[in-house]
Parts: sequence; C-alpha cells; structure tokens
Amino acid sequence: MIITISRQFASGGREIGKRLADALGLEYYDRELITEIAGQSSLNEDYVAQVLEKGGFANFAFSFAHTMPLTATTPNTVTDVLVAQQKVIKAIAQKGDCVIVGRCADVIAADFHPVKIFVYADSQSKIKRCREREHEGEDLSDKKLLKRFKEIDKGRAKLHDLLSSLPWGDKDGYDLMLNTSNIDIKAIIPKLADLITEISRTN
Amino acid sequence: MIITISRQFASGGREIGKRLADALGLEYYDRELITEIAGQSSLNEDYVAQVLEKGGFANFAFSFAHTMPLTATTPNTVTDVLVAQQKVIKAIAQKGDCVIVGRCADVIAADFHPVKIFVYADSQSKIKRCREREHEGEDLSDKKLLKRFKEIDKGRAKLHDLLSSLPWGDKDGYDLMLNTSNIDIKAIIPKLADLITEISRTN
Repeated sequence: MIITISRQFASGGREIGKRLADALGLEYYDRELITEIAGQSSLNEDYVAQVLEKGGFANFAFSFAHTMPLTATTPNTVTDVLVAQQKVIKAIAQKGDCVIVGRCADVIAADFHPVKIFVYADSQSKIKRCREREHEGEDLSDKKLLKRFKEIDKGRAKLHDLLSSLPWGDKDGYDLMLNTSNIDIKAIIPKLADLITEISRTN
Repeated sequence: MIITISRQFASGGREIGKRLADALGLEYYDRELITEIAGQSSLNEDYVAQVLEKGGFANFAFSFAHTMPLTATTPNTVTDVLVAQQKVIKAIAQKGDCVIVGRCADVIAADFHPVKIFVYADSQSKIKRCREREHEGEDLSDKKLLKRFKEIDKGRAKLHDLLSSLPWGDKDGYDLMLNTSNIDIKAIIPKLADLITEISRTN
C-alpha cells in the first residue's frame, strides 16, 4: 500500500502522514527526501529545500529552467532537482508500503496506484497550528503568516502543475480530501487508516 | 449526528447516504423531501422536482424570481420552493440524527454542525454507474450523458451558490470529499461510518 499526502502548508498533513505510517506500519518519507534528492542531483541540501519546500520555486524564472542548455558550465539546477525528485520518489514507490508527504508523489508515483489524499484547513486553524508548533515565524502578524502560507502553497502548486494536467488541490486528482479545521487529528487516525486500507483494496 | 451529502450527479452520493444511514441508524432524507417541500409551498411535486432535482433551475430567469412582486396572481414560485426547502431542512436538522442528501442541506443546516461530505467521480465511472442503475437515458450516447450530468450539476451549483459564499464543490465548504471512481462503495461504508462518527465528535 502506498499513500501520498498532498497538503496545504500548516494544515496538519505531515502529522497525518506520520501518524498514518505509524498506525499502518508503513515507511514514512517527508523531509528526509531532501537529503536523497540533494545526493542524486549533487546539489546543496539547503538549495534543494529552497526549491522544493520553501516556496522558493515560485520565484525562479521558469523560462530559465526550460531554455538554458544543460551543460557543465550552466547548471540547470532547478531541472536537476526535479529530475532527481522523480528518481527518488519512483525508487521509493517501487519498494512499496510507504507514506510519502508532498514532493508531487501523487503524480510521480501514479503508476503504483497510491491512495491519494489532500489535506487542507481554513485560515484560522492554520494560523493556530503554526503558532502552536513552529518556532519560525512566531513574531509574524496573522496577516503576514497567511501571506507566507499562500507563498509556500503557490510554490507547491507550481511544482505540481509542472507534472500534472490537474491543478494542485483539484479534487479530481485525489481519492480523499480531508479538512482538518475542526478535527482532532490524533483521534481520527485509527478510523482514517481503516478507511484508506479499504480504499486501497480497489484502487 | 447530522451528515449532509452533496454530490455530483451519478457519483454514488445517494447510495453512500442511504448506506451510511443504515449503518449508523440515522434517518435518511433525499427524494422524499420533494413531497414535503411541495406540501409546504403548495406547489406541484413535479414542478418542485423540476426546480430542485432536474437542473431545471438553471433554466429559470433569475431576474424573474427576484423582481416579480409576490402576489396571489403572480406566484413567485421559484422563491416559494426555496423558502419551503429551508423550512423543511431546518425542521429535519432540528430533530437531528439524520443523513440529508442534496437540497443545500450543508448550508441550510450549518448551525447544527453537520459533518459535510462531498461525493464526486470521474466521467467514465459516472457513465458506468448511470448505465448500470438508471433506465432513463439508456439510449443516450456517452457525450449526451455527460452533457446531461453537467446540466444537472450546474443546476445544483446555482441553487447552492444562492445560499453560500463558497461555490458548490469548493473543498473549503466540506469536511470530507470522497472520489468514488475507484471505490467499492458497499465495502468502504463501515469504515467511512466510523470515520464520520469520529469527525462528528469534534465538529
């Protein structure tokens, strides 16, 4: 069984992924993928994280990534990261029995028929979650936090939309979409795990 | 516990609603609401069904419904249907412990904190479901069936969007969205019922 979790920033997708992996005895992949992708692409981890995690990709010139020739002296680094990401995700999906959070795994691992989940929440609960759990950004106003969430999600959407004809967050691209605004994540995990297991039988 | 099921036409939302009601011992409301709404509004059942079920509403002139004075000789019938719908749904929600399929119940019964579910599917599985279960429309081509689905969903969206600031089918309006394209509905019901029960505790 493979589960992919796409998620709005601060919606609790990572927590759901981790807890599902624990409940179902599956391998869990999230930030550790950055290390592997950096290794594959021979690029600095911070740079890979910037491209794939921090919404940094949204600020890169797309035209650059697509039009510059790929030579040793003009490293087409964004493309390198994306190619490495595909290799790493496919290798993980090949092994099976895992939860992959983010990294466009829903699209990249599509041939392995994952159960594709999208996790989202309303602004207030995302702010609350962020303030409870993250140290970074503690000093930001609600307005600035929401702007940051939007930037990060925009980066995720852009990366995803490079690979898929369905926009990031479009329900047609997922088996299940879960709104965590009013949910006790820990409490629902056993039931969610059971439902996903049942869905995966026919997927 | 109140569950509202919004659904794309032919996605299996009605089946999910009925089976959930059976599994959880809840009252089930779907087409029978038409009779009550017709009674409340003193209008013909077929007409009410046309407005609320068959996508007929999409063909009515909105300007008519909103600008004609409400007198005995110029019955503002679309508005009458909508007002009656609100009364009937609120009375049902007040009693609690029910599954309501369609009828904008997610919006109308919002004060009663229902678990709001949206059921959808891809075109191929909707065509398959329709051909397996419905006698009406059997002679239509796939293309014409899809056009019919689209018309009906457009009617549902218009009715919904009269009452809500969030568009019909927008994930932010629901707690859970379920894609039935690759799902054995009967098989997942016990697990789905458990998950919804857990969600309803904090909702």
